[in-house]
Amino acid sequence: MTVIDDLIEALGTETVLTGEAIGERYRSDASTTGKSLPLAVLRPSNTEQVSLALAICDRHRQPVVPQGGLTGLAGGANARGGDIAISLERMSGVEDVDTAAGTMTVLAGTPLEVAQLVAETAGFLLPIDLGARGSCQIGGNLSTNAGGIRVIRHGVTRDNVLGLEAVLADGTVLSSLNRMVKNNTGYDLRQLFIGSEGTLGIITRCVLRLRPLPAARLTALCAIDSYTHVVSLLKSAQRELAGLSAFEAMWENYFRFNAEALNLTFFDKATPFIVIIEQDANGSDEDKERFETFLGKTFEDGLVTDALIAQSEKEARAFWSVREGHLMDQLLPGLINLDVSLPIGQLDDFAGDCEKALFARFPAAHVSFFGHVGDSNLHVAVWIESPSEHDLHEIDAIAYDLVRKYKGSISAEHGIGTLKRDFLDHSRSQAEIGVMRRIKTALDPNGIMNPGKVIPLRS
Amino acid sequence: MTVIDDLIEALGTETVLTGEAIGERYRSDASTTGKSLPLAVLRPSNTEQVSLALAICDRHRQPVVPQGGLTGLAGGANARGGDIAISLERMSGVEDVDTAAGTMTVLAGTPLEVAQLVAETAGFLLPIDLGARGSCQIGGNLSTNAGGIRVIRHGVTRDNVLGLEAVLADGTVLSSLNRMVKNNTGYDLRQLFIGSEGTLGIITRCVLRLRPLPAARLTALCAIDSYTHVVSLLKSAQRELAGLSAFEAMWENYFRFNAEALNLTFFDKATPFIVIIEQDANGSDEDKERFETFLGKTFEDGLVTDALIAQSEKEARAFWSVREGHLMDQLLPGLINLDVSLPIGQLDDFAGDCEKALFARFPAAHVSFFGHVGDSNLHVAVWIESPSEHDLHEIDAIAYDLVRKYKGSISAEHGIGTLKRDFLDHSRSQAEIGVMRRIKTALDPNGIMNPGKVIPLRS
Repeated sequence: MTVIDDLIEALGTETVLTGEAIGERYRSDASTTGKSLPLAVLRPSNTEQVSLALAICDRHRQPVVPQGGLTGLAGGANARGGDIAISLERMSGVEDVDTAAGTMTVLAGTPLEVAQLVAETAGFLLPIDLGARGSCQIGGNLSTNAGGIRVIRHGVTRDNVLGLEAVLADGTVLSSLNRMVKNNTGYDLRQLFIGSEGTLGIITRCVLRLRPLPAARLTALCAIDSYTHVVSLLKSAQRELAGLSAFEAMWENYFRFNAEALNLTFFDKATPFIVIIEQDANGSDEDKERFETFLGKTFEDGLVTDALIAQSEKEARAFWSVREGHLMDQLLPGLINLDVSLPIGQLDDFAGDCEKALFARFPAAHVSFFGHVGDSNLHVAVWIESPSEHDLHEIDAIAYDLVRKYKGSISAEHGIGTLKRDFLDHSRSQAEIGVMRRIKTALDPNGIMNPGKVIPLRS
Repeated sequence: MTVIDDLIEALGTETVLTGEAIGERYRSDASTTGKSLPLAVLRPSNTEQVSLALAICDRHRQPVVPQGGLTGLAGGANARGGDIAISLERMSGVEDVDTAAGTMTVLAGTPLEVAQLVAETAGFLLPIDLGARGSCQIGGNLSTNAGGIRVIRHGVTRDNVLGLEAVLADGTVLSSLNRMVKNNTGYDLRQLFIGSEGTLGIITRCVLRLRPLPAARLTALCAIDSYTHVVSLLKSAQRELAGLSAFEAMWENYFRFNAEALNLTFFDKATPFIVIIEQDANGSDEDKERFETFLGKTFEDGLVTDALIAQSEKEARAFWSVREGHLMDQLLPGLINLDVSLPIGQLDDFAGDCEKALFARFPAAHVSFFGHVGDSNLHVAVWIESPSEHDLHEIDAIAYDLVRKYKGSISAEHGIGTLKRDFLDHSRSQAEIGVMRRIKTALDPNGIMNPGKVIPLRS
């Protein structure tokens, strides 16, 4: 019996798609790392089916790749030819909201936006949030430890998961569906699965931590004349605005490009940095006055040279539309978005060095910077005309060599997948990679779980 | 050559204490799990010495037990006869404070209070805080994932560690001294060491996350007539008070016992629950008014029946002195403090069941409850006259059997050590314990790292 025969016998043909039945969507995530047809796509409906499927694949030494919403940017969910994809899409739904504890139990295939809406309906905020919310799935958010724009207040995905259930390569169901904030009972296996990009097992459900739903949000756009002042403003905002929920900086040329593309004008003259500050608020006039007083003081102190407070949801959206820069992707097709972390004080030094190094090699490149400064996370937007594979690799190498020099991280939120795999040693030591291999072997001795992802191949 | 000979040759006699030279303090942590003299006590001065020591012990298959400030309550740092203790006490000091990033790099043997003071001097709050702050050490705080009273705002220790350096059993130095909030580059090895109680390696230094230092704190003591109202008040405080930094509940008899012991009176009549609410504030009158308005509204809404706002630091200290209950330990010598987690909505149901079960077996027992309700953490104070070893075991068994029934955690913050080791399966499944064993073996194949702690022995 082949592995496919065994899978069909155990799970039925409805769950095991092969050949023509495999849709185009299972071929690739949102990265540009190449497409290939999996040997089969499994669509289990429950944890027991995931367990059966993995036990069979493990017996056959059959590599598998877990798939969620396929919105990843690092190739982590792409099948190699011959891999079997396991899609969690049929395991979707919120199973429980515990309003006293402020937790929700969610199946891994649930789209993030669905989970967010269920939380809101129950009067809570699910603080995990990112642009792909409509398509990405909770299981993928956990596997990649998704970041996003609300990290400054409520942390990354890792900080918002209380418990999870995962299936190991041999089919063992590991149920750690803890609902408590504090739980010191042995190793934190949960944190090991979060961010491991499907190389240690498949996450099937989880318990997420919910937060109070803010009644309102206050948003300001600030013009700032130096990076030192950006950092001072951040520290001041963290001290004074207890509900600070976003602190997003744009370097001048990123801001200009996107504001012009959107045909929006905000300030009379250009400044080197533009920052969006957002605060969760209770909707009272008092809260608004407080926010205004804070901004007035930063102006008096010389931290900001100009500031606009959104007077409506629409104005706040206009600020954010510049930051999100969707038109940039359209105007510069094939735009590369590098995602790195650096100590907060050094983001601008890195930006200067990175721009210089990229221009030295690609004088006609577009290079601009924006990022979640409060989270030490810088995004670098790079575009060159008709890049070759080799050009793309060179851009990565230039940027990541600098990241290594600054002792930064080559991936702040996108993960490693295949795209950054061979640069992992720029941010992690050989000893660390060695321990990752030991853990991988301990949990997946036959090496069937998403092989070729995250951990560099042995040379 | 014996292991001691090898260690002395490599590290010198100043670092290797044996026989008479071993002080009384190295014999036991603050638990009541028995004392024994280690074969030797090593006092390395740097990571290289820790690495040398472990490599030698590993070669000799010599069990070791890491020791910090020895304030633990679960026996995790106690040597068995024949174990070699490795004390981190000489590796003390704050190496760096990065004020732009808001991080500090600290050696593992640094007393928590020293690290807190260095942070404060630099204008920051180190949010890890617990009663033993004067004696406990940062390395121990990480190894046990310490909790404490500031968890509701800034999380447990796990949430405040950005990076760490650890030495594995074979002497490999694993340096993950990350300084960034976001870092998605492979497995989160940091989280594996945090809370593993020295069974996977020895933490030697770490990068901690700092927060803005609040200018002031506002404190209130609230009388509440039902547990439902306690939970409603918690949710309301989390929604309205962005800087909520403590929410501590006392059940009536715990409050009464300690208030009487301290000769303090706060309210005209007794209520079933008394809660301390604390909020970080900026010291303005506006902030104080806001806090008063919030409490006024909870009174109008019927959530609290009475409330006192501390008008001075001294009054706030008086509220906290009741909660801390130091006199209780003196008046009831040998008082047992059980430390469990349960879903927030069920803390009082558990308390009722637990009290009933304990009284059924020990009719003359003192049983009272208090806890970090916002963190799902309940402490049970139990005292019986002249308990035998068997009585103590029965008390544990009664409480932890109920914790299992409620799907709670047998250790919210104290850890497992030896004291709770044989109850670990009350909170973790056999599959989870199996995976812990696999990881333990992968990182410490000769089983020299703190053997007999955390993971149940194979039967």
